[in-house]
Amino acid sequence: MPHAQLQPVLDHIDADFDNSLARLFALLRIKSISADPAFAADCKAAADHLAQDIATFGFAAEVRPTAGHPAIVAKSSGNGKARPHVLFYGHYDVQPVDPLNLWDRPPFEPVVTDHADGRKIIVARGAEDDKGQLMTFVEACRAWKSVTGALPLDITILIEGEEEVGSKNFVPFLETNKDELKADFAMVCDTSMWDADTPAITTSLRGLVYDEVKIKAANRDLHSGMFGGGAQNPIRVLTRILGGLFDDNGHITIPGFYDGVKDLPPDVLAQWKQLDLTPDSFLKPIGLSIPAGEKDRLLIEQLSSRPTCDVNGIVGGYIGEGSKTVIPAEASAKISFRLVEGQDPAKIRKAFRDYVTARVPADCKVEFGDHSLAPAIALDWNMKPLAAARQALTDEWGKETLLIGSGASIPIVADFKKTLGLDSLLVGFGLDDDNIHSPNEKYDLKSFHKGIRSWARILASLAELPR
Amino acid sequence: MPHAQLQPVLDHIDADFDNSLARLFALLRIKSISADPAFAADCKAAADHLAQDIATFGFAAEVRPTAGHPAIVAKSSGNGKARPHVLFYGHYDVQPVDPLNLWDRPPFEPVVTDHADGRKIIVARGAEDDKGQLMTFVEACRAWKSVTGALPLDITILIEGEEEVGSKNFVPFLETNKDELKADFAMVCDTSMWDADTPAITTSLRGLVYDEVKIKAANRDLHSGMFGGGAQNPIRVLTRILGGLFDDNGHITIPGFYDGVKDLPPDVLAQWKQLDLTPDSFLKPIGLSIPAGEKDRLLIEQLSSRPTCDVNGIVGGYIGEGSKTVIPAEASAKISFRLVEGQDPAKIRKAFRDYVTARVPADCKVEFGDHSLAPAIALDWNMKPLAAARQALTDEWGKETLLIGSGASIPIVADFKKTLGLDSLLVGFGLDDDNIHSPNEKYDLKSFHKGIRSWARILASLAELPR
Repeated sequence: MPHAQLQPVLDHIDADFDNSLARLFALLRIKSISADPAFAADCKAAADHLAQDIATFGFAAEVRPTAGHPAIVAKSSGNGKARPHVLFYGHYDVQPVDPLNLWDRPPFEPVVTDHADGRKIIVARGAEDDKGQLMTFVEACRAWKSVTGALPLDITILIEGEEEVGSKNFVPFLETNKDELKADFAMVCDTSMWDADTPAITTSLRGLVYDEVKIKAANRDLHSGMFGGGAQNPIRVLTRILGGLFDDNGHITIPGFYDGVKDLPPDVLAQWKQLDLTPDSFLKPIGLSIPAGEKDRLLIEQLSSRPTCDVNGIVGGYIGEGSKTVIPAEASAKISFRLVEGQDPAKIRKAFRDYVTARVPADCKVEFGDHSLAPAIALDWNMKPLAAARQALTDEWGKETLLIGSGASIPIVADFKKTLGLDSLLVGFGLDDDNIHSPNEKYDLKSFHKGIRSWARILASLAELPR
Repeated sequence: MPHAQLQPVLDHIDADFDNSLARLFALLRIKSISADPAFAADCKAAADHLAQDIATFGFAAEVRPTAGHPAIVAKSSGNGKARPHVLFYGHYDVQPVDPLNLWDRPPFEPVVTDHADGRKIIVARGAEDDKGQLMTFVEACRAWKSVTGALPLDITILIEGEEEVGSKNFVPFLETNKDELKADFAMVCDTSMWDADTPAITTSLRGLVYDEVKIKAANRDLHSGMFGGGAQNPIRVLTRILGGLFDDNGHITIPGFYDGVKDLPPDVLAQWKQLDLTPDSFLKPIGLSIPAGEKDRLLIEQLSSRPTCDVNGIVGGYIGEGSKTVIPAEASAKISFRLVEGQDPAKIRKAFRDYVTARVPADCKVEFGDHSLAPAIALDWNMKPLAAARQALTDEWGKETLLIGSGASIPIVADFKKTLGLDSLLVGFGLDDDNIHSPNEKYDLKSFHKGIRSWARILASLAELPR
């Protein structure tokens, strides 16, 4: 009976924790930045490293090519009996590290250090997203195998290398290999806790439309003294378009953008109000005080249940030291939309592109690039594994596990449903202050340690589910 | 009598032209980019090189330190008689070269090549602005000295190294050395012809206010999935501010911006209309067709007599390959205004900064940087040297010399008036398609050759002016 074996597994996790940390560090040292082609070999190295490691505790682990960075498929050997089979998902790729000068130390030289408030933290790019998170599961499996000689249920570990760039090549990979990837349900470790003491399972996710817009004006850079006033400036065109995306009340002005967006059910809204997420608690730690979203919505709605728009990058003209009196030939921006249930990503993209195109002067050109097109996901709150996992998390953390909506997108969850027919259980140990996608990314040492213990408990609980 | 000696001087210029070109190339090879501190030694090298060269034909030439890049002061020896004394001004510093990938060849490896339409052109950063231009004057002096053993009038050559970054340290240098820099008037070679066949003297110049604006929001980069919708995005703030700088008719919306701006006198407007500067002739060569300025103004007014605003650079967030779902901590832009007579640069700067500050959310910060604050200049159309120079140019080019207004700023002209009490004569041989401040900067070989001959003629004419 798995639960009888749990305590020795947890004890082993505690005793072996220094080695778990060393294994995480080895993975963190690999510069697997998927967005930049210069790091393609590093991505391959990360995949090879992980597959070799997972094979050491009895998985048949393979690095599989895709049209982009490779994926890992690792299957545990069954015990010959019919028992639950889960598909675990994580990603070994990480975000770019710029601006590098804002890191306190090199992003690929992980350390354990002290947070200002005394917490022990692991600092490195990927410390949380998603290397630290995926290693909580890998280490839990290793502990089960080490202590009991077997895993309590059948497991397929699936790790991709293009999550941070939209999984464009991974989704076709799922389709091609769908027979091999059959399971009862999926588990994803890429989400957050409610706070440092309160575990959470994420039950809804925002979708993501991410476009790149380039405005082209003159056929070359111009001198603003000679051409200024007469020649169109693409930065002027671009800022005018982007500057009009919000009205004075924080609503997004693209026609049809809110079509299909539903208000929260009154009971959920009432529950969220009780969570008391305030500007003081949420914005003050990041140096802000005024919620930036729709003025007629609660902060927690702005962050969780309402669609958003952000310009994630903009560049044009002279950006070096000093000054240059140039009118550039082009300017570009990266713009993303977080979508909620009821919004169609393809319609949002079209509405945005129509909005932009209508505002480009007749003698300028606009080009669009495509980085993501993923719908929002509402998970089944009644799926059987959810109750089991929730109890296991509550047992580990000693606090009731919350069921939360996340503003972030994990588009792969929709693809698991569509391609493999699988529901997903989203459990993670990230915190709001982990600086993911930012300089000085960190993962609490406690998240890593208790995250491993949490998965060990969840595996035991799931093993006892009826098939 | 200088005019009797002119023909042998012109003949010598023709015979020695290959050597003139070689000397220009030697100067063009020096990477004297003043905006970037990494090139400080190159700026010093350019100053040393020029001073040594000018000393070879009888000038007492010195490299003088300033608080920034050094200046050159070179004085010819008089002939003991009271005769006209001119102060010639040029600058050895050049603009940065980015985006480097748009250059057809390395910017500091000058070549003579064929323009698409068959013109011979010199291609390099600084080929026109201002190394090619200043060398037309240097070579004319060299030819006079070489042929006649003397210069026809007294000359001080003054060359600075910070024109492209606002001459911040050069103006105090003028003040400190004003007694030594006394002359009858100044001559500046940093302007353009009307077209490739028609010489011009510039008699009005737009001023320049150039500011940098940085918007700061959160205290670190944020993940847009976690914070999007609730946390303010500085790119949103910046684009909203910049996007509102123009109304639908192309007018600048900053309160008070047009205060003091006068309409053109009817006779000048009538003359300008006859010049027939059309979108087809002016914008089509740069790939545009619609004048971008105030809709109720002629294109030539938009370019010459109306104040303008351009965003010369903007940057924020992730600008690398691919995508990153970041809300950056800050975003910044470089913004310049071309001013006309009647506008007070300090008032314009204040009005702009007030406009920006009023639009920054209460929990964000704004910082301003200062690159230029120069008024517009209207020159004295009746100054005596102007008529003499105009005739000399007409003799050389075989076409009537036009008196034109320039949209560009040459702020030093105001400083010569204010600090040294000197009027300036603005003669140059640039063309609209020289790509100054852009990739593939060029100078027509004809501009360089006939520019040298033009100065030789002007020196002869000016020598005969009554004192």
